[in-house]
Amino acid sequence: MAELPKKYKAVVYDKPGTLSTKIEELHMPEPGLGEVLVNLTHSGVCHSDYGIMMNAWSASLPAPTQPGQVGGHEGVGTIVKMGPGTANDGVKLGDRVGIKWMASICLSCEACRAGADACCPNGKISGYYTPGTFQQYVLAPANYVTPIPASLDSAAAAPLLCAGLTVYAALRKSNAASGTWVAISGAGGGLGHLAVQFSARAIGHRVIGIDHSSKKDLVLASGAEHFVAIDTTHDVPAAVKALTGGLGAHAVLVLTANNGAYATSLDMLRFGGRMVCVGIPEGEPVPIASALPNVMVARALQVIGVAVGDRKEAIEALEFAARGVVKSHYRVEKMDQLTSVFQEMEEGRLKGRVVLDLS
Amino acid sequence: MAELPKKYKAVVYDKPGTLSTKIEELHMPEPGLGEVLVNLTHSGVCHSDYGIMMNAWSASLPAPTQPGQVGGHEGVGTIVKMGPGTANDGVKLGDRVGIKWMASICLSCEACRAGADACCPNGKISGYYTPGTFQQYVLAPANYVTPIPASLDSAAAAPLLCAGLTVYAALRKSNAASGTWVAISGAGGGLGHLAVQFSARAIGHRVIGIDHSSKKDLVLASGAEHFVAIDTTHDVPAAVKALTGGLGAHAVLVLTANNGAYATSLDMLRFGGRMVCVGIPEGEPVPIASALPNVMVARALQVIGVAVGDRKEAIEALEFAARGVVKSHYRVEKMDQLTSVFQEMEEGRLKGRVVLDLS
Amino acid sequence: MAELPKKYKAVVYDKPGTLSTKIEELHMPEPGLGEVLVNLTHSGVCHSDYGIMMNAWSASLPAPTQPGQVGGHEGVGTIVKMGPGTANDGVKLGDRVGIKWMASICLSCEACRAGADACCPNGKISGYYTPGTFQQYVLAPANYVTPIPASLDSAAAAPLLCAGLTVYAALRKSNAASGTWVAISGAGGGLGHLAVQFSARAIGHRVIGIDHSSKKDLVLASGAEHFVAIDTTHDVPAAVKALTGGLGAHAVLVLTANNGAYATSLDMLRFGGRMVCVGIPEGEPVPIASALPNVMVARALQVIGVAVGDRKEAIEALEFAARGVVKSHYRVEKMDQLTSVFQEMEEGRLKGRVVLDLS
Amino acid sequence: MAELPKKYKAVVYDKPGTLSTKIEELHMPEPGLGEVLVNLTHSGVCHSDYGIMMNAWSASLPAPTQPGQVGGHEGVGTIVKMGPGTANDGVKLGDRVGIKWMASICLSCEACRAGADACCPNGKISGYYTPGTFQQYVLAPANYVTPIPASLDSAAAAPLLCAGLTVYAALRKSNAASGTWVAISGAGGGLGHLAVQFSARAIGHRVIGIDHSSKKDLVLASGAEHFVAIDTTHDVPAAVKALTGGLGAHAVLVLTANNGAYATSLDMLRFGGRMVCVGIPEGEPVPIASALPNVMVARALQVIGVAVGDRKEAIEALEFAARGVVKSHYRVEKMDQLTSVFQEMEEGRLKGRVVLDLS
Repeated sequence: MAELPKKYKAVVYDKPGTLSTKIEELHMPEPGLGEVLVNLTHSGVCHSDYGIMMNAWSASLPAPTQPGQVGGHEGVGTIVKMGPGTANDGVKLGDRVGIKWMASICLSCEACRAGADACCPNGKISGYYTPGTFQQYVLAPANYVTPIPASLDSAAAAPLLCAGLTVYAALRKSNAASGTWVAISGAGGGLGHLAVQFSARAIGHRVIGIDHSSKKDLVLASGAEHFVAIDTTHDVPAAVKALTGGLGAHAVLVLTANNGAYATSLDMLRFGGRMVCVGIPEGEPVPIASALPNVMVARALQVIGVAVGDRKEAIEALEFAARGVVKSHYRVEKMDQLTSVFQEMEEGRLKGRVVLDLS
Repeated sequence: MAELPKKYKAVVYDKPGTLSTKIEELHMPEPGLGEVLVNLTHSGVCHSDYGIMMNAWSASLPAPTQPGQVGGHEGVGTIVKMGPGTANDGVKLGDRVGIKWMASICLSCEACRAGADACCPNGKISGYYTPGTFQQYVLAPANYVTPIPASLDSAAAAPLLCAGLTVYAALRKSNAASGTWVAISGAGGGLGHLAVQFSARAIGHRVIGIDHSSKKDLVLASGAEHFVAIDTTHDVPAAVKALTGGLGAHAVLVLTANNGAYATSLDMLRFGGRMVCVGIPEGEPVPIASALPNVMVARALQVIGVAVGDRKEAIEALEFAARGVVKSHYRVEKMDQLTSVFQEMEEGRLKGRVVLDLS
Repeated sequence: MAELPKKYKAVVYDKPGTLSTKIEELHMPEPGLGEVLVNLTHSGVCHSDYGIMMNAWSASLPAPTQPGQVGGHEGVGTIVKMGPGTANDGVKLGDRVGIKWMASICLSCEACRAGADACCPNGKISGYYTPGTFQQYVLAPANYVTPIPASLDSAAAAPLLCAGLTVYAALRKSNAASGTWVAISGAGGGLGHLAVQFSARAIGHRVIGIDHSSKKDLVLASGAEHFVAIDTTHDVPAAVKALTGGLGAHAVLVLTANNGAYATSLDMLRFGGRMVCVGIPEGEPVPIASALPNVMVARALQVIGVAVGDRKEAIEALEFAARGVVKSHYRVEKMDQLTSVFQEMEEGRLKGRVVLDLS
Repeated sequence: MAELPKKYKAVVYDKPGTLSTKIEELHMPEPGLGEVLVNLTHSGVCHSDYGIMMNAWSASLPAPTQPGQVGGHEGVGTIVKMGPGTANDGVKLGDRVGIKWMASICLSCEACRAGADACCPNGKISGYYTPGTFQQYVLAPANYVTPIPASLDSAAAAPLLCAGLTVYAALRKSNAASGTWVAISGAGGGLGHLAVQFSARAIGHRVIGIDHSSKKDLVLASGAEHFVAIDTTHDVPAAVKALTGGLGAHAVLVLTANNGAYATSLDMLRFGGRMVCVGIPEGEPVPIASALPNVMVARALQVIGVAVGDRKEAIEALEFAARGVVKSHYRVEKMDQLTSVFQEMEEGRLKGRVVLDLS
């Protein structure tokens, strides 16, 4: 293997709280105990990165983001160096692997033993607690990187590592059986278009996509059986009920970070139905307006929160993509375009996912 | 079998909306297709009966209660006549059986096929849609009455048919495994003291009872490992966390019909924990204040609504009582005391359950 | 509605134990309590009918089949008369409905309460305990007939009512998640080709079909990802392991009534895998040769038996067919051809399913 | 902390294949990456140790046991040295911890991700692949030792680490709900008396203990509701059915290493019941004689294999013991008595568990 360079390029948040990123040269790190060094070629750009850069999630994170932070948590690259103690971790030099929202977890605590990776109190969020994937090299724990299947392109794999994994985990935890109705709120977004595909094509749900009418074609092309436009439909829950024989859906995924979506989603469900919370509205947290005890009791409804999935789900989600069942819509941009990508996000102009080419 | 009388006594709501009941003589009915005639000897008195009499649940029920309505839904008696078409329903002349909150369900709809008895759109609530159990004779569907185990006294069985069944079903649906922590809000009430027993003694949970300090002895005697007094504890969720090694309970049952209890209950849970809604606050429905998307997502929390249990759970709950694992606290009153019992309820003076002697 | 005829045609087993059937005229029956009268237009012919006619299952059935028995248990027709007490059973005059292997169950016993329809001790097998579906009219319980979706042809629906339902239930009880590997032994048969479709297309499993090489095309056309030919493969479990990355399948369905298939099937599974028994070998029962305690313990394997599915699964299976996800391969024959159809079965010449036209 | 000695005492199998052990002095090892050094004070003696020493399990293990092997897999002691890379593994210097049958697993493979610890292909059996717990010091992976609760005596904890954990895991995987019937075959043995306690007292099952009549008192004292003596009962399955209202148990645990026990156990179950295989008969493996496809299908029966439990279950099992819900029956012997303990085992004279005092 060729000698590693002494320095490499990274995009950093130079002025957290404002829309500003900057390319810097960093010193090549050395993998410690249990770590591998990964030469990244691609990283997806997620709305959460924007939130971390802008300090928009102060209610959920312990401290403001520091200047010089490298963001990013959908990274794909090749292992170029193995640290000590990594022999039994299932990866080896030259393997292509992915970095997820959770950069590392302890694998020893109660949450880890229960498979609730995102709840590990020792877990580190990539691009906030640790240097993330908007750079050419990154250190990662050998036992927590995700192997990338051979038939899956690196750029195509990137958005699966957070957006894809999150919606796949949410669908699994919806408990909705194949053949049942799943409504997806925010079906045309970065998470949504993947959720529709996983739901309709991987698991075999009957999907009702809910979003602005501009997203109709993408949602239907992703496999939804029906589309409900929020801008032209007077009563969205009633529309969902009408499409499901009057009873309502078996599950609803709320992918939009919008309190209004939460306020109406429980009303779309049939008795025993389950609402899965994924999107986190910005600003002051607001209770889910449709979570009324009398209604939940009378109709045996359920509301559950689901964070990013676990190691097992990451492997499964990538396998569906490797088989071509699920495909992310993305465009590729150079590293130095990150600021403008965030600007598109801020202005609501971004369609689908952007993947940074880090080479 | 002795000839049946032509008339019998019933207590009716003579002026619904006010606290008033009256004993009347009614004509003996004839069991129709699929029905049995039950000679009732006991009926529990539930807070829901009071609510129906007072028209307090207008948000959940379709119409005001009619004058002359016979209330009650925790009835125990003996089958004295079988209607046609009841041969394969598993009960026979002379069997002791119970009448539940759901007087009948269709057993054919999607909810019934799924075992969600309380969600059956054809289901009838005893003492509201049909004449209830505050009378000496009642008609009931042969396929939906609950057999009473031989070793269980009729008066003792009555409170199990709604209060006991409801909390047993809620505990089952909490998904909390034996040996895990369950917090019970309202642990000293009519439902609560049974919930503590089912939880600690039948399923083997570690129970933290939460209620006013006046209920401490009853709650601990019912099997709770710890008691948290709401009137003397500054931060109830913090107290629950401290008692559970800092993590919080695996599940919390909200049995109190109190929006304040809902507002704090989710904070008592560890990651992945489940809040079970049972109590229905009166008045205008209010969203569960602790059901915040950001918290539910970050900690993978769940909120579920559970109505009264199903046929299977009724049989199981009674079996635990028949074995002496669970015992209801009640006192027996004559039929003509119903008004004064409701008055005790209204004034918050009622301790434990009252069972009417209908003989 | 037109007047019903006094008499109608039925095919009976005139000499049970031999391959002989005969068309007879029977008197039109009157629906009793809870019953409907169905004017049948189609009935599938199942290998189990042949077994009942030939008295081949003496180990499992209580008595020899009686002369004059009307067989059949995959019937489709229209309700032409409603008996008393059927108002709340969810069907009405003119509805198209199906008759299943279980003609009726009590809906009241422990098995029925648990949704284990086929284990109801009061259950009646259609075409053995009751007159079956090889006739133009049949009585059936209103609460146990299966509604046929409007978009599904009656002839196409018939094989779903036993063959389709059975394999669908078996796949559900395999616990295999979408995207996992399911091996199907007997993949090209009457049950098998439906199992492959339900598995691959409805639930999204990755299917390995196992059968004689003559069935390869049908199995692959039904959605299998791989085919293993039992006549040309030296070591079938090894072949399945090789196709699944060395680990083995997550579940295997044994649809063949063959002790040899049972003897090798457990070896195809990865740790924690589940073998689902469906096919019942004729003759003296033989223990499953691969069910060795040391292997099952070391690899955490599971073996489960699954009989025909329940009411809920019947509705779900038909819905997949109504949406075109699953299609039965069948040919239509006239009623008087039943003997020759059974002869084809006996000689192993039958391909796919035969549906009798009863009009 | 006091300086560690250079040498320490161990009991080794000096002539594997024969009943012979010998005390030797070994050099103190140094903990490697991810390892801790544990100063053991106690080790349980399990029948599996005897099997490994005698090479009795050649069908299940890859090679004969080597001379000099240190056996044992129920060890309890204190961490006296931490290797590098153990900071986040949840244990620290001075903690009391336990060593289990699985000495280590990789925590990275598919089995580990699924929580099937015993199926990890990289897993090492303590006392066979690695030096076991019949010695004063042992190396163990920091992320796989089990913390011992403060209130639990070290000698009392030892038998929980294999015998207790195994039966607890088997009970969990029986899927039997609290209040249902569980039959335990071998209820009076080293595993059995713990199984009865976990079943009856921790989970709340109704237990029927099955064993020789000499074990009756121990079994009933452990919490069984009924006892069936195999030496005086003509038809054991019939006896179990009679005790369970004619239906049979919901689950049966086969803890005896006896093909005859397997041959009758499935017949004790009601429809849908589950047999859990734990005991591994010695000698040539024999199929489970009661695993007949026709019976399993008709009655929807299940047979599952369960090996020793996982990390999570180990912690739970110890917690029940720490609370006094479950208590192991054992006597303490000195290290140099191991040969005579094995001799008692061989001759069938051993009652309860023996724990070696290693101090």
